[in-house]
Amino acid sequence: MILLPAGYLRELGVRIFTSLGAPRPKAELVTETLIEASLTGHDSHGVYYFLRYADRIRKGFIRPDAEPVVVRESPSSALVDGCWGFGQVTAMRVMELAVEKARRSVVSAVGAYNCNHIGRVGYYTAWAARRGLIGLMFVNVGHPMVSVHGGVGRVLGTNPFSASAPTGEEPFLLDYATSTVADGKVSWAIASGERIPDHWIRDRYGGPTTDPNELREGGWLLPFGGHKGYCLQLLMELMGAALTGSRSGVDPEIGPPSTNGVLAVAIDPEGFVGLDSFMRRSREILRRVKETRAEDGGEVLIPGEPEWRTRRRREVEGIPLPESIWSQISKLAEELSITL
Amino acid sequence: MILLPAGYLRELGVRIFTSLGAPRPKAELVTETLIEASLTGHDSHGVYYFLRYADRIRKGFIRPDAEPVVVRESPSSALVDGCWGFGQVTAMRVMELAVEKARRSVVSAVGAYNCNHIGRVGYYTAWAARRGLIGLMFVNVGHPMVSVHGGVGRVLGTNPFSASAPTGEEPFLLDYATSTVADGKVSWAIASGERIPDHWIRDRYGGPTTDPNELREGGWLLPFGGHKGYCLQLLMELMGAALTGSRSGVDPEIGPPSTNGVLAVAIDPEGFVGLDSFMRRSREILRRVKETRAEDGGEVLIPGEPEWRTRRRREVEGIPLPESIWSQISKLAEELSITL
Repeated sequence: MILLPAGYLRELGVRIFTSLGAPRPKAELVTETLIEASLTGHDSHGVYYFLRYADRIRKGFIRPDAEPVVVRESPSSALVDGCWGFGQVTAMRVMELAVEKARRSVVSAVGAYNCNHIGRVGYYTAWAARRGLIGLMFVNVGHPMVSVHGGVGRVLGTNPFSASAPTGEEPFLLDYATSTVADGKVSWAIASGERIPDHWIRDRYGGPTTDPNELREGGWLLPFGGHKGYCLQLLMELMGAALTGSRSGVDPEIGPPSTNGVLAVAIDPEGFVGLDSFMRRSREILRRVKETRAEDGGEVLIPGEPEWRTRRRREVEGIPLPESIWSQISKLAEELSITL
Repeated sequence: MILLPAGYLRELGVRIFTSLGAPRPKAELVTETLIEASLTGHDSHGVYYFLRYADRIRKGFIRPDAEPVVVRESPSSALVDGCWGFGQVTAMRVMELAVEKARRSVVSAVGAYNCNHIGRVGYYTAWAARRGLIGLMFVNVGHPMVSVHGGVGRVLGTNPFSASAPTGEEPFLLDYATSTVADGKVSWAIASGERIPDHWIRDRYGGPTTDPNELREGGWLLPFGGHKGYCLQLLMELMGAALTGSRSGVDPEIGPPSTNGVLAVAIDPEGFVGLDSFMRRSREILRRVKETRAEDGGEVLIPGEPEWRTRRRREVEGIPLPESIWSQISKLAEELSITL
């Protein structure tokens, strides 16, 4: 494992994506979301994706200069055609529209289709929360990796859900795959040469395994939390895919890999108790939760706290990368004649 | 266990609540939600509540004739003061407003405070779905029964979440407490003299137990699904309590027991791919999920399927009630001089 400064990786990412045809603002946004994922500890959705996106641009799946187009709109809603540009560019446009519309209409819903992988979903919801709105994002993944509760084999994607709320301090942040873990966490374990807990995936025969490679050999992820997580997994599929016209996990995988169907909902607390009152009460509730005695003698964590804590540390210490990933990124930079 | 026809219990419920001062339409609505809960198999939220609500009316916690008041409104949002009437009356008003507003504005958000126990949350979201809208309801319970992830003791309520979507057939229905189980399921086990699985609750010392009575002796429920369910539990608290001005699980329990803070969000698929397309795609996705081979050789169930199946059976066979509950209901009817 090596440690690299965020600033260095940021500059590198922007150079990689501009070299591959992305206009600078788009390259900056995509890189920023990946750096932020790495900084907040979501390594599986971080700098590692320099490689995957470069590959997808070269194969024509990501059109690095494509601009999302609003195809349907009302004062409080919109449907966006991502035109197969960067998923981040589409998702950011979706959340910007959602925030703008919720400020005028108290609540908004904005969806997107023809959308590539958007990365860490919490980036967008926390962005809304930092602007004083509650942000929700329901996402499906058009790439089956996860079984359904009680069922055998891959049926749906890892279907992440995120919700973030302003508190006047760092935002409350719920941000997770509705599978036991995100696919990227297994890829990360493979890249890092680590074993995984035996409840993350099933092997191709449906048995438990601690070998992450089994997921690439016909195994599958499970929904988290039994039938309750499974219900949430399916809700993401209906909101992300059926409502927006995006590819479902049950469809043939024609076109780009790991597409996302996205629905953002933003809510302005000013339409209810008011933003100040909402933030004061939220802080009070979260403080009381935080003060709870921990079972293990440690501390109870608030959703978002691990992220913001990891970011403060990594901003100083740097971002950790397995040697294997760093050598691939270096090779990519070399191919593109990038020197930093 | 005895079996009683739904029609008989419906008439009895209406008579009980009107005898206790409820105007007939309110008595009918409350009874209907409880009968529907029993019919769909949610016994813990069903006819059993004839007793609890009667007790709360007598103690002055539920004002059976109170009408909810809209205190804040925009074309796509509203905040409702439940005025401590029946929770069902408030929740129904919330969802009616949400549906009406979403039809005009594509999306809506309606909250409520001063709201008594609303019963089974899926009643309201499925009601929206049967009218062609996606209905979400985020609910907190102002009565701490559940620990937070990694923490000791009762901190928050069972904080249910529900989402329902139209499919052209019976609606998709996610409807659950964000605790391992609803408090009412433990009460039901106590009333039925049954043991419970050892992961439902902790005893007063923090250890596992199969005795449901331990929950009444200082034990607590756990959030479902580890840290992921815990995040959802907290989201319900922020949306249900902080956004609407309702009592939080961390507040002193002054006033009515088991109050609910409610936020409904309704989305009209017509603002996206259109209702017909949304339903067709949803059916297609759910059919493919349903066709998945089951691990245990049985069948994979779709969210809502257990409910609609149980209802079809109980409409014919009747609603099962433990003798102890039926004898208490009979006693209540006698006190109120109700003969059927």
